[in-house]
Amino acid sequence: MTTCLSIVGVGLIGGSFALAARNAGSFSTIVAFEPDEANAARALALGLVDEVVSEIPADCDAVLVACPSDRVPQWLETLQDHSGVVFDTASVKGAVLAATQASVGHLPANYVPCHPIAGLEKSGPDAADADLFRDKLVIITAAAATDRERCKRVERWWQETGARIEHMDAFEHDRVYALTSHLPHLLAFAYLQGVAAEHLPHTGGGFRDFSRIGASDSAMWSAIFELNKDALLPRLAEFQKNLDSFRRVIETGDVAASKALIEAARTHRRELADDG
Amino acid sequence: MTTCLSIVGVGLIGGSFALAARNAGSFSTIVAFEPDEANAARALALGLVDEVVSEIPADCDAVLVACPSDRVPQWLETLQDHSGVVFDTASVKGAVLAATQASVGHLPANYVPCHPIAGLEKSGPDAADADLFRDKLVIITAAAATDRERCKRVERWWQETGARIEHMDAFEHDRVYALTSHLPHLLAFAYLQGVAAEHLPHTGGGFRDFSRIGASDSAMWSAIFELNKDALLPRLAEFQKNLDSFRRVIETGDVAASKALIEAARTHRRELADDG
Repeated sequence: MTTCLSIVGVGLIGGSFALAARNAGSFSTIVAFEPDEANAARALALGLVDEVVSEIPADCDAVLVACPSDRVPQWLETLQDHSGVVFDTASVKGAVLAATQASVGHLPANYVPCHPIAGLEKSGPDAADADLFRDKLVIITAAAATDRERCKRVERWWQETGARIEHMDAFEHDRVYALTSHLPHLLAFAYLQGVAAEHLPHTGGGFRDFSRIGASDSAMWSAIFELNKDALLPRLAEFQKNLDSFRRVIETGDVAASKALIEAARTHRRELADDG
Repeated sequence: MTTCLSIVGVGLIGGSFALAARNAGSFSTIVAFEPDEANAARALALGLVDEVVSEIPADCDAVLVACPSDRVPQWLETLQDHSGVVFDTASVKGAVLAATQASVGHLPANYVPCHPIAGLEKSGPDAADADLFRDKLVIITAAAATDRERCKRVERWWQETGARIEHMDAFEHDRVYALTSHLPHLLAFAYLQGVAAEHLPHTGGGFRDFSRIGASDSAMWSAIFELNKDALLPRLAEFQKNLDSFRRVIETGDVAASKALIEAARTHRRELADDG
């Protein structure tokens, strides 16, 4: 039996999924819809996909929508009657579900909402990596309307890339990732506004680690901030309050209070056992 | 000819210098003054030092003061008439020079002010690494009073650890590192105040890189914030202004402006060619 996957957008995420799925033999054929001609040519040259198509084949078995989050709802509308499985990689889930529901009138049963926790500051087909999803988490935020059998197929494909599956409510997902992913990116982008070329010789490993996510893709991240602002802005307000408190502690020279805040931070950080 | 180095504080930095200097054969004997008894015992057990001493030997050739920045001025006062070379590793230089000048009445000629740009979120003698300084920068902020011949000796010892030397004015150093090192640490500490154990399963590589410095030593960093607040607080104010601007852009849904801010950030970040 031949099976065909179509990928909308063969950048870092779409291209990495293509490589991993190819290695695992999950599909017989992989084709790409890629409006950026340079990226389409690179994806072909790198062997990420077998063919570049100008529209999604009606008879393909699966469509991976791997474009920036703000363009996902329109694709879900276009593909609402597709006979295969439609799944995505958007970092925002609740707003994508809500926008799709608003435009289609209901949530298409063929859509399985996915978010692989495997971003990188790199982007484009040249950054594609067959091991990008290995041992990483993929969050699936299935809705009541989501077809269970299609959902199982999507879980299997992700597992074949080496990923682990976790199920969450879409809006709970957005609240959690607003804090653990979207806010750090926003802070790194804001921090880098104040950095100029003259400072770069004076950077150590701390700066490099802290600001690495500040090199992330601008189309992807401006879309995330817009779509998830209802969850992000309260997290940002909480951060600004914490930062103001810390500022006052430093201004008043209260070294004991400063030390206590740092101890609280390092305790939270050290609960992560998977690195230093 | 036998040469002896005394190290005040055998944690990450002091212990790493001991290992590197031992590998390079820079000194015949290395002894430690370490008030923390557990750390002193570990430093001996790990072979970082030959002996733990209760006072700095008057006839040693060099004293490395590797304790938190706020305790450095007192050591410089104590050692002001020592016949050897006194050098330190404090991350703040101008305030250390000013405090020492205030208490001693002048800057001791035997003192060579140093800052190795090689911090880690780990601390203690167990984190010591003979290669910590390899290919790293060591900033020397010599003053007019600094003895040039002693300065040359210190440069040679750092070079023997694999480090590169750069000379800077002490207060210029503090202004630059307030931005490239002290502010990122402060932001990571403030960010981690809002993170709880429930969020930790939902963290990717972005979170881990961004928040790694948030596990840094609290005695060291509360001292740095206190000593360098004159340079740090204006950098913090600038960051808060940039963050407020970014917040308004997100609140108003100006995706084009958001994208432009992210592009500016990634351009600054990408000028660093040494990683992703």
